[in-house]
Amino acid sequence: MTTAYDQLRDTFTRLSRLSHLSAITGWDMQTQMPSGGSQARAEALSELSVLMHQTLTAPQIADWIEQAKNESLDTDQQANLHEIARRYQQAVILPDQFVSAKSLAGMKCEHAWRTQRPDNDWSGFVKNFAPVVELSREEAQIRAEATKVSRYDALLDLYEPGMTSARLDAIFADVKSWLPELLKNIIEKQSAEQTLSAQGPFAIEKQRALGLDIMQVLGFDFNHGRLDVSAHPFCGGVPEDVRITTRYTENDFLSALLGIVHETGHARYEQNLPKQWAGQPIGEARSTAIHESQSLLFEMQLARSEPFLTFLRPYVQKAFGDQPAFDPANFKRINQRVEAGYIRIDADEVSYPAHVILRYEIERALIEGDIDVQHIPALWDEKMRAYLGLSTKDNFRDGCMQDIHWTDGAFGYFPTYTLGAMYAAQLFASAKVALPDLNSQILRGDLSPLSDWLRQNIWQQGSRFDTDTLIKNASGETLNPSFFRRHLEQRYLDR
Amino acid sequence: MTTAYDQLRDTFTRLSRLSHLSAITGWDMQTQMPSGGSQARAEALSELSVLMHQTLTAPQIADWIEQAKNESLDTDQQANLHEIARRYQQAVILPDQFVSAKSLAGMKCEHAWRTQRPDNDWSGFVKNFAPVVELSREEAQIRAEATKVSRYDALLDLYEPGMTSARLDAIFADVKSWLPELLKNIIEKQSAEQTLSAQGPFAIEKQRALGLDIMQVLGFDFNHGRLDVSAHPFCGGVPEDVRITTRYTENDFLSALLGIVHETGHARYEQNLPKQWAGQPIGEARSTAIHESQSLLFEMQLARSEPFLTFLRPYVQKAFGDQPAFDPANFKRINQRVEAGYIRIDADEVSYPAHVILRYEIERALIEGDIDVQHIPALWDEKMRAYLGLSTKDNFRDGCMQDIHWTDGAFGYFPTYTLGAMYAAQLFASAKVALPDLNSQILRGDLSPLSDWLRQNIWQQGSRFDTDTLIKNASGETLNPSFFRRHLEQRYLDR
Repeated sequence: MTTAYDQLRDTFTRLSRLSHLSAITGWDMQTQMPSGGSQARAEALSELSVLMHQTLTAPQIADWIEQAKNESLDTDQQANLHEIARRYQQAVILPDQFVSAKSLAGMKCEHAWRTQRPDNDWSGFVKNFAPVVELSREEAQIRAEATKVSRYDALLDLYEPGMTSARLDAIFADVKSWLPELLKNIIEKQSAEQTLSAQGPFAIEKQRALGLDIMQVLGFDFNHGRLDVSAHPFCGGVPEDVRITTRYTENDFLSALLGIVHETGHARYEQNLPKQWAGQPIGEARSTAIHESQSLLFEMQLARSEPFLTFLRPYVQKAFGDQPAFDPANFKRINQRVEAGYIRIDADEVSYPAHVILRYEIERALIEGDIDVQHIPALWDEKMRAYLGLSTKDNFRDGCMQDIHWTDGAFGYFPTYTLGAMYAAQLFASAKVALPDLNSQILRGDLSPLSDWLRQNIWQQGSRFDTDTLIKNASGETLNPSFFRRHLEQRYLDR
Repeated sequence: MTTAYDQLRDTFTRLSRLSHLSAITGWDMQTQMPSGGSQARAEALSELSVLMHQTLTAPQIADWIEQAKNESLDTDQQANLHEIARRYQQAVILPDQFVSAKSLAGMKCEHAWRTQRPDNDWSGFVKNFAPVVELSREEAQIRAEATKVSRYDALLDLYEPGMTSARLDAIFADVKSWLPELLKNIIEKQSAEQTLSAQGPFAIEKQRALGLDIMQVLGFDFNHGRLDVSAHPFCGGVPEDVRITTRYTENDFLSALLGIVHETGHARYEQNLPKQWAGQPIGEARSTAIHESQSLLFEMQLARSEPFLTFLRPYVQKAFGDQPAFDPANFKRINQRVEAGYIRIDADEVSYPAHVILRYEIERALIEGDIDVQHIPALWDEKMRAYLGLSTKDNFRDGCMQDIHWTDGAFGYFPTYTLGAMYAAQLFASAKVALPDLNSQILRGDLSPLSDWLRQNIWQQGSRFDTDTLIKNASGETLNPSFFRRHLEQRYLDR
């Protein structure tokens, strides 16, 4: 007999097969497609997304969900049903016309932004951006009414289920209480040190070969994935075939290399999700912040640590020859450099939270209706001066126009970066407790004990538990930002 | 008001968007995908093909077709409706279960064939191949009953609408009457000439750069397409983004280069199909043979001609340095070499029809039930000896197991190769009449007059006319195989 749960399971298997096509053609669009193919590709992807939305919101889905709640399900099936219901609710609540209107407004804004940002054209940008904000507020309103939370929290929940702005306020208030002082002390300490830059050019082919070697060390499964080039690095594809990308410049190899390490963290999570749940929501990564915790654990906790840099140095010398910048102490300094800067994606792990908190405070006020679009530049300048001591007055391109997220109406996403950094610090600290020899394992490039720990505690868990339970099971407690603070103090001030 | 025709048009636009996703992920599978991704990819593509089949055979489609016949349509819309009805009939006639059973049997047979062929394992192959033949006969029977033609003709019509075995019999009987003698004379003539082989190695990167240069000369639009590598060269993708492939070996650059020219012929047809009919059946290529006529026109008629080889020589010398093999007369000889061989895909244009006729005769008898699977090897050997003077006794891997087509049940496809060669000769002869300066244009690499002629007479016509009308409009008469014979006699015997 086919149960209602079986019907739901089969529907989500179908949806996952369709999203396979969207993931691969999406990757192709960023890495292979000639520009003349873009309109046909956009039409094909939009057709598929309409079809998937129809499948997910078909009338019988709601009935099956209700029936399945009364069927005899094991714990995992119940967890899967919970995730299925969440996705259905999130999708069915918005009218079809609204979804396509918002998607159109976002595409228009993003497309224009690509030239308006280099032109520093804020007033031109506002014309397309104001409607995106309006539609995002409307979406927040609809979702908030259904879930009885605040408007911003309703959007936040899309990326980070269970997270609230009340909790974020407490976390970020704490960070704001110690970060400016910490940043000042680190910059002061580092300014007393002499640091040599690595001298290029570094041939792209050698950078690529080095990146592939390090992916191998990090356990990337090349039978189920590849490395390519795109303008904006990402981790795409499907768990069975993960596509990561980087971008190379000849005068700096560390940016591409650490980018590869970052995406490899995402990739290993995807490649090690529970196979027995492939295609089901319970088999997917837990949340945006947990995904980011894996990339940041690889990039920040692991790769910029002294033991890993010691292991990495001979690879670098073999690839590019030796030079004074690769001396141990200097090599560590160039990989642990801290600077207050304008651009979030170029920021080190110490100043990064300032960029996130600033965005969080502005986007929340914007969605809650406390401020309007025209207030953003002044607020941005004010907060940049307060948090990082830099002014962005009249400098929109390096200020409030620098990121793509808002152009598409992705409000509620930014906090996940810093949550990810905090989860990464907490998980790495737990791994160290569980693996007393971790540092010496890293020193000799043996990452399988760390991988095994992550596989068991995070990767194989998929979405079986909510985030708090997942983290508590792995580390003994729910999110505790003090691990992150301690990590920064230890690494950068030797405390 | 939305007419029934509008509904059909919109349905086919949707289908074409979905087939865009299948084309690109299919290309990816052959060129990019790591092998561990194959099962998930197969499932995703099969899901999409079920969905497309459901869309194409939905109950309302038949009603719309009937209603549209009574609507006021212009000539092109009528032609489009005709093609729509043809596709609907072809798709709806087979029960869903039959389609998936045949597809499964084909996949199983093809998969095993990949190792059975190198192992020369005919008896192992037969176990999977017999069911494929059985299902193909069943399909032929179902289609034959519906269209009142013979079983083989019903399959042939899938690739070459309007072609019949009666017509093929006449064409091939003629070829068989002169080909053996012609082949003998050419081989005799060439054996009296001393031909130097080109001496490798030829660096892959240089081969690729040369290929790209020649694609540019041939008018390939790189804003709407790319060149990559795959084990079996093909032309894939979509008209807005055509993906051609080749394969390189270091000891021979001509095979990859002329392969690129061949696929560029396919690509230019796709890239120049009528944009105003994009997504509609009338906007697609006319048939398999006409598609092949474009690739063979580029490869055989154009690229192996004396004027083009004269134009090409300096490119080759620039890429690989000079050597005695590149002297004009010798360069022509290595590009016009004729040899009786076992392998169809390695065959020159003179012996190629023998390979096709042999397959046609065997597959027709097989589908009509005149012979059974176990009779194939002896028949193959007998015909190879008769047509090419070679025995394939006990040599299955270079005999009846060499091609992929039958493993998938693609019976009725082989004749289109030789029909394509004949159309190519006929069209090129017409182009020469229309363009009296064609040879001198080719000599200086100016292919735009030839392109313009093809664009106007073939590419822009899509499927507006049936094949006979298309060819008659372009060349003044329907298929006339004597152009092909004359071409071979002129090129190879200077007659």
